[in-house]
Amino acid sequence: MRYLKLTLEYDGTNFCGFQKQTGTGLRTVQGVLEAALQKLTGEPVRTFGAGRTDAGVHALGQVVHFATQAKIPVDRFPAALNGVLPSDLVVKKGEEVDSSFHARYSAFAKKYCYLILNSKHPSALWHKRCCYFPYPLNVDLMRDAARCLEGYHDFQAFSAAGSNVKNTTRHLFSFRVVRQRDWIGFVVTAEGFLYKMVRLMGGTLLEVGREKFPPQRVQEILASGRRGQGGPALPPQGLYLVRIYYPGEGEDTSSWKEAPELGFPFASLF
Amino acid sequence: MRYLKLTLEYDGTNFCGFQKQTGTGLRTVQGVLEAALQKLTGEPVRTFGAGRTDAGVHALGQVVHFATQAKIPVDRFPAALNGVLPSDLVVKKGEEVDSSFHARYSAFAKKYCYLILNSKHPSALWHKRCCYFPYPLNVDLMRDAARCLEGYHDFQAFSAAGSNVKNTTRHLFSFRVVRQRDWIGFVVTAEGFLYKMVRLMGGTLLEVGREKFPPQRVQEILASGRRGQGGPALPPQGLYLVRIYYPGEGEDTSSWKEAPELGFPFASLF
Repeated sequence: MRYLKLTLEYDGTNFCGFQKQTGTGLRTVQGVLEAALQKLTGEPVRTFGAGRTDAGVHALGQVVHFATQAKIPVDRFPAALNGVLPSDLVVKKGEEVDSSFHARYSAFAKKYCYLILNSKHPSALWHKRCCYFPYPLNVDLMRDAARCLEGYHDFQAFSAAGSNVKNTTRHLFSFRVVRQRDWIGFVVTAEGFLYKMVRLMGGTLLEVGREKFPPQRVQEILASGRRGQGGPALPPQGLYLVRIYYPGEGEDTSSWKEAPELGFPFASLF
Repeated sequence: MRYLKLTLEYDGTNFCGFQKQTGTGLRTVQGVLEAALQKLTGEPVRTFGAGRTDAGVHALGQVVHFATQAKIPVDRFPAALNGVLPSDLVVKKGEEVDSSFHARYSAFAKKYCYLILNSKHPSALWHKRCCYFPYPLNVDLMRDAARCLEGYHDFQAFSAAGSNVKNTTRHLFSFRVVRQRDWIGFVVTAEGFLYKMVRLMGGTLLEVGREKFPPQRVQEILASGRRGQGGPALPPQGLYLVRIYYPGEGEDTSSWKEAPELGFPFASLF
């Protein structure tokens, strides 16, 4: 038996989330991936994902692992699998791992990015890939609020019901607010995330940016431990699962603060 | 009667091109726009576009003009119209013009950009917005070839049949080949373009980049005036109509060489 780790990019628009929903007929990332793996290897394959993304949420670096008896060399696996996958789900990388590797439990950090288009008019090309927000935003205040969220905290106040996680304490390593022209990005790295945590923190930061909440309010909401005190969760289409971090990858943690490359930064070439 | 000029962004994926095709039931940019204008103004509106983009081709700055008796102030026109337009077609700007303005005939230059993803694996997020090309490309040779195309030439050899244009001579002001990481862009500004001219020139540049054609071959093809000598036309989804230039906009022509901002250049912030 071999154990393989795959890194996936997907456009979440036409998926009902990551997690397979057997018997529902819903199109999910895991369901489509497992069907493609079965087609390629000729055996039923059960995959394990690093994180469950909701419907409409995108990924640049989702990770899954699985066991297989297929003999396909690991360096040819991505291209072979991409040959049977639909174009909105792409394998970017394949690696052989040992049997102790688990996409979810071996990870020590995850990075998400939330993308906001803060302009007068929406974008036709980005409408399923960002959250359009036309009101003025005070980015300095948002950065102050983001700093309150960094560190080791109980994030219960920034979680949605619908998960039965008991321990709601997480180490949030980095929360950056980046701005360029009409775009704002939240780049958040943590050891783990609660259900809808990024979108709820993001919605609250927009309230701060609009100067409806002072930045300290974020601290108070966090300390209260009560849900429903912050802004509403931002919509899924602005959210990207950027990267899953595993031990032994030889990288320092400086990349935790780095924003992902989402597209061709044409204008920046000049 | 008032005369309005609108600047449009659209995602060409789900449009059968720009031009209205009455009676066919096909969804076109012009058809959708005119229906929205009629809904907003209560009057039938006939629009005139600066350029006809093919099915699948995108626009960041298409321009149309039309006459109307509607009293809506021009600064509110974009938001009002966006309220009735679908999300893949957005009005970015509205301006009042005089009756002599014509979106097509008043233009003195047009800028297109062609976007290529030159990486080992395709992109799930960009698959309808770029051309995926996995083979190594020699960008220096492509730049040499691009320079042969700049200037005042008969571009018949780089046009497709299906248009009854008689004069195939055009002034091509600038043809830049830009590269960043896995992305390559052709940024082409000319007084006008023949049918499929950008995609045919682009397909030929890829042959040069793969070292199948020497750069001088592009010069020879151009001089031959015969179609079908160069590489095949690139697919529509990598093409963007970036900007239409009109006299009196107070800009110098240095922007002709500039690449457009297509997305959030996250990675470049660091």
